[in-house]
Formats: sequence, C-alpha cells, structure tokens
Amino acid sequence: MKRWDTVAIVGVGLIGGSIGLDLLRRGLAKHVVGIGRRQATLRTAKRVGAVSSTTLQLDRGVAEADLVVVCTPVGRIAADVRAAAAACPSGALITDAGSTKEAIVAELDGAASLADGVRFVGSHPLAGSEKNGPAAAMPDLFQDRTVVVTPTSHTRKADEQAITAFWRSLGAKVVRMTPVDHDRALAATSHLPHLVAAALAAATDKKNLALIARGWLDTTRIAGGDPALWEQILAANRANVLTALGRYEKVLASFRRAIEAGDEAQLIRLLAEAQTIARRSRDALGS
Amino acid sequence: MKRWDTVAIVGVGLIGGSIGLDLLRRGLAKHVVGIGRRQATLRTAKRVGAVSSTTLQLDRGVAEADLVVVCTPVGRIAADVRAAAAACPSGALITDAGSTKEAIVAELDGAASLADGVRFVGSHPLAGSEKNGPAAAMPDLFQDRTVVVTPTSHTRKADEQAITAFWRSLGAKVVRMTPVDHDRALAATSHLPHLVAAALAAATDKKNLALIARGWLDTTRIAGGDPALWEQILAANRANVLTALGRYEKVLASFRRAIEAGDEAQLIRLLAEAQTIARRSRDALGS
Repeated sequence: MKRWDTVAIVGVGLIGGSIGLDLLRRGLAKHVVGIGRRQATLRTAKRVGAVSSTTLQLDRGVAEADLVVVCTPVGRIAADVRAAAAACPSGALITDAGSTKEAIVAELDGAASLADGVRFVGSHPLAGSEKNGPAAAMPDLFQDRTVVVTPTSHTRKADEQAITAFWRSLGAKVVRMTPVDHDRALAATSHLPHLVAAALAAATDKKNLALIARGWLDTTRIAGGDPALWEQILAANRANVLTALGRYEKVLASFRRAIEAGDEAQLIRLLAEAQTIARRSRDALGS
Repeated sequence: MKRWDTVAIVGVGLIGGSIGLDLLRRGLAKHVVGIGRRQATLRTAKRVGAVSSTTLQLDRGVAEADLVVVCTPVGRIAADVRAAAAACPSGALITDAGSTKEAIVAELDGAASLADGVRFVGSHPLAGSEKNGPAAAMPDLFQDRTVVVTPTSHTRKADEQAITAFWRSLGAKVVRMTPVDHDRALAATSHLPHLVAAALAAATDKKNLALIARGWLDTTRIAGGDPALWEQILAANRANVLTALGRYEKVLASFRRAIEAGDEAQLIRLLAEAQTIARRSRDALGS
C-alpha cells in the first residue's frame, strides 16, 4: 500500500478530520497538514490526532504535499482546489470530498484548468453524519463505505488509480461514475432524503414533540445537519433534486389517494413495495 | 410494586413478547399466559422466555387472568378485548397496546360495553421497531419510554392507577391523554413519519440503491414495518393522518419553492428551523 510523504487536508471537519485520523493511525502518511480558517478548529484537529501539523495559510500548507484532499463545503471546493493547485508541487494530485460533482469537476477538468503538472480527480465518500467539526472525526469512518470517484475523458489512468488506491487504503469500496450520473443518483439517495427529513422535522408542531419516539427520531436524524452546507448541496444539484422531489411527491400523492379512498388493498400494496425496498437495502448494507 | 398472579397477553409479537419478558424477568407476575393464533409463534414466545404458558384459545387463556394485555393489530383489538372480557374473571382489568385509541376506546368505553365487573383502560406504549414477532422481543423495551394511557369519564380512578402502575413497573413514563388528543398527536409524530419514510423508499429507483448510505437508511428504517399492521393504523386514524400529511405537504412545497427560486436565504432558514427541531428533540430524548 502506498505510503504518502505529505497529505494536505483543506477543511478539517468531520470528513477531513476522519481522513487524517486514518492516514496517521494506519501509517499511510508521514505528515498530515491540516489547513483551516479558524485556529480553534485546527487546534481541535491536532488534539484528536487528525493532523500532524496545522496552518491557516493554504499556500503554505500544500507546499510539500503529494496529495491534497479538499474537504470544504461544496460552494468553496473549486476555488480551494485552484488555490491548492497554484501552490502545491508539480506532480501533486488533488481530490475532494464534495457531495456534488458535476459543477465542480466541470470547472476543474481539462488540461488547461490547473497549474502545470497538477491534476484533479473528483471524489465523494458516502460517509458522514449529522455532526460537524473535527471533534466528530472518527477512525474507520470510511471502512466498508462507498466512495464514488468521477474521472473524465481528461483524467489520466494513473491518477484515477492513485485516488482509487487512496480511498481503498482507508477501507472504502470505490465506485467509478461520471459526474453527471453521480449527481443524478445522489439527488435521489442523499439530497432528497435530507429534504424529506427536514420537512418532517419542520412540520412537527412543537406541542407534539413530547410524543415522538424512535421512528420520528430516525426519520428526522439527517435534518440535524448543517443548514449552510446543505443549502450549497441542494443549490449545486438543483435540477436533479427537483426531479427526485417530483418523483417523491408523486409517490406521496398515491399514498394520499389510497388513504382518502379507504383503498385497503392499494395502501397495503404501496406499503409492501416500500417495505421490500427498505428491507432489501438494509440487508444489502448489512445494517 | 404490585405483583400480578396471572397476566394474559393476547398477541405475543414484539410488543406483547417484550411485556411478558419483563413481567417474568422482573418478577412482576407469577404466570404469564401467551395467547396467539399460530402454534409456531407461541413456541417462539415460550422459548425466548416471554411467557410461562401458551394457548391458542383466548377464552381458556384469560380464564384466570387478573390483567389482560391485548397486543393484536389495531383492527382486531376491540373484538379481542370483548372476547377476553367475556371469559376472564370478574374484577379483571384489560388494557391494550394499540397505536390508535379513539375508535377502540369509543367502542369499549362505558358501563354497558363489557361483561359485568370487567373494565378496559386504553394504552399505547411508544416503543417498538420495524421488526415483528416474539423473536424480536427484548427486555427493557419500555424502560424510559413513554406510554400514553387514555382514560375517559367512565374510567374508575383505581383502574387508571392500576394500569399506570403496570406500565411504570416496566420502566415506562406514563402520560395521560384523551383518546382524541392521542390520535391527533400520534398522526404527526408516528403515522406521518411512516408515510414519509415509506414514500421515500418507494420513490427510490432500484438502480440507485447501490449508492445509498446511512442517511437514506435511517430515513427509511420504519418503512420496514409490517404493511398490514400499518394499513390498519393509517385507516383507523385517517382524518388526523390526512391533516398531518397536508401540513407536511405544505412545508415540503415551501422547500420546493425556495430551491426553484434559488432563494438561498429562505432555504437556509427552512433548513435551520428543521435542524433546531430535530436536534432539540434528539437531545430531549437523550438519543
């Protein structure tokens, strides 16, 4: 397994911090430089063992990096990759952990887009939680999780392989997709669920909160995620999110019609279809 | 704490089985009779320690009971309570574990509705899971959970107190509500979440299931529940469920409008409101 000399992580929150933690614990990198905007966050990242050194200056932080992993919010990733590319050594690889890929990859892809000899390959680890910040970083966060890697026609095979090997070294299963396919699928499997959960939480009258139980809590858990981060994700993937939402609204309307009509057989059919999908998926993920 | 001589449990699934398990483990009952419709289920209930004896015949099973707990599906509870009342000793108390209360209590309430000297007090333990059957029974399922007890103007104070003490002896917190208020609140906190989760599962294209992660799984978990049981719950609470669904649809539409309009501030506002409710509720329940 490749051992990196220096990995720079731009944005040491839950995802960036967990990457650093694994790199150091698994001996996959000699140095992990944490780059952030706030000294307090960097101190926490250092304290929990997520990074070996820290800096507020992106150009300094990436100056010796073989690999830069940009883990900032979706709306800042492209600019941070450009800034890293301008300051890191020739031959360095850059990847990210953004929840959307189409706009980011389109902006960074192609021979002329980055400084000479620096290449970007987009990634999205399907891991995380509703928690934020380096204090929420955890070892083995990516173990047995899926990471989508989104090479394009401009991506060198060796670079794709290096990024794939990087995520595999953290225990992840890597899936290769186009940025367009990624964003369409994730709208349905991640961005729509966030909307559904958030709308349920927001629709719950405060006077009824004393009567919630585990079902409500599970269904709304991801609504606890950071609003600013999620606004960026939903905005960046707007067209796909609206399509997925339209599909959901249609299904919900068919539930409504069956209840209104008192159509027992149809309601059982709809619930059974949902049960099959929910159970099979759970079994497939072993959770 | 009161020790019952004989408790009869009609329907030894997850809820009924867990009640029996606690009664025997905590030494709260000398005998727990499990009454069911299938020998295989009763054998499992016996094997896991949820009951001390079993029978397929309801009238025999309740013949010596001081307390009968009816844990059958919502659509069968009233009939099972009547059958139990006709066969159990005078002075016996009957309660249930149904997810809806208004129709059940209305049918059973009042001096003339049950055999002489037998009284019913409605209950709903807010505990459970998407799993079914006595094999899913677990000790301490009700510990620190809420149980709603729904006395009416016909309920004797001593009976309400005995049923309250019963649930408290299993570790539960008891909340007293009218059946009408219960059904209205649970439509929002339990029945609507089931619809929301089921619609999300059913709206997920099978080809995208390889890309689901923990967020999707949590949001759809309760959709794994039994379709026939849930159809009965949704049907029994139709008017309240449709009202709660209408409120949810309105909130979801406001999310849609903010995304369509690219209204960043409004989308963040909506997400932040949801986050506050989701996080505060989680903290309140300590989970």
